[in-house]
Amino acid sequence: MPKQVDHRERRETIARALWRVVEQRGIAHASVREVAQEAGISHGAVQHYFATREELLVFAMDFASEQTSLRVADGVRELGSPPHPRDMLRAMLTEMLPLRPDARATSRMSAAYVLEALHNANIHARARDGLTHGRDLIEQIVRQAITDGHISPDRDPATETNLLLALTGLTPLIELSVIEPQEALTAVDQHLNRLFTNKT
Amino acid sequence: MPKQVDHRERRETIARALWRVVEQRGIAHASVREVAQEAGISHGAVQHYFATREELLVFAMDFASEQTSLRVADGVRELGSPPHPRDMLRAMLTEMLPLRPDARATSRMSAAYVLEALHNANIHARARDGLTHGRDLIEQIVRQAITDGHISPDRDPATETNLLLALTGLTPLIELSVIEPQEALTAVDQHLNRLFTNKT
Repeated sequence: MPKQVDHRERRETIARALWRVVEQRGIAHASVREVAQEAGISHGAVQHYFATREELLVFAMDFASEQTSLRVADGVRELGSPPHPRDMLRAMLTEMLPLRPDARATSRMSAAYVLEALHNANIHARARDGLTHGRDLIEQIVRQAITDGHISPDRDPATETNLLLALTGLTPLIELSVIEPQEALTAVDQHLNRLFTNKT
Repeated sequence: MPKQVDHRERRETIARALWRVVEQRGIAHASVREVAQEAGISHGAVQHYFATREELLVFAMDFASEQTSLRVADGVRELGSPPHPRDMLRAMLTEMLPLRPDARATSRMSAAYVLEALHNANIHARARDGLTHGRDLIEQIVRQAITDGHISPDRDPATETNLLLALTGLTPLIELSVIEPQEALTAVDQHLNRLFTNKT
């Protein structure tokens, strides 16, 4: 196995250990020491890959975003070709909600990262870029759906994109068991159905 | 001043100090020691009012919810009598978003509390009760608005309530400066306008 691949694998193993620490104990416990212990490798070995806790957090978040994108891509592949934009948006939104174990891990990582960003300029800049990129992808889908006649041209693509992303606000309701996962999906579907009715 | 009031004031001063610590440094710094320092009182004095960090967190969150309710009540009083349900919901939602300094402090306290709840059964139960209570209030307004003909009877009140609460999902977009506060308000207004069009 080329050394490059091995390095990447080791970093991903450490990142997944950080996710587990964040998911099960909270980001306050996400020190290099506790993550090393969770990963079952030495403190020094983690430091070999990540010089600081911040480097580790940034990599773990980038990796969480990548994994979320891969889960979305898997979901979209099952939709037939070409996928309907409504179903693509549904696949994206449901993977951003803590509805399944893997999505819950990345959702909690993401929520903790946003709070961390409020007190760290470098993480703020990176989190902003990441969210802006994700937002741009959704806005492209919305604009194309308007062009293709799936969404009414009366709709403002920027505002609709913000309202789609706002659906991640169902997260605390799910995490605190105030609503059932099925109720969250019903809300997402209701919102998407109205967006795609092509009526004002 | 009666002693009871003095006690309450002291507890609120400590709670506000905790909000500042959470807002400016993050909940990882919200130890009894750092909060005492921020409040400018002795560690022992804080312990006199709050035996544990958890007691302090719970009180600070309850106080944040109360203060948010008071800000909403202030906003609703300005709406004329009787206030239109659309405007009442707008007042509630805008006070839950980090659009002004006081709302930002309580919003960050609330976000940190939800993450804390994931690893603490007592805080989970309290956070769940608090969010359920807030959700019930919104559902009552939605149901009454349907009864009064402001919202179409075709709308499902539970789903509409979940979609209204989901608008707090604009928070990361605002906090990471991905969108401007005005864009968040436009999204909230767009959502409310459609809910209150009384058309399916």
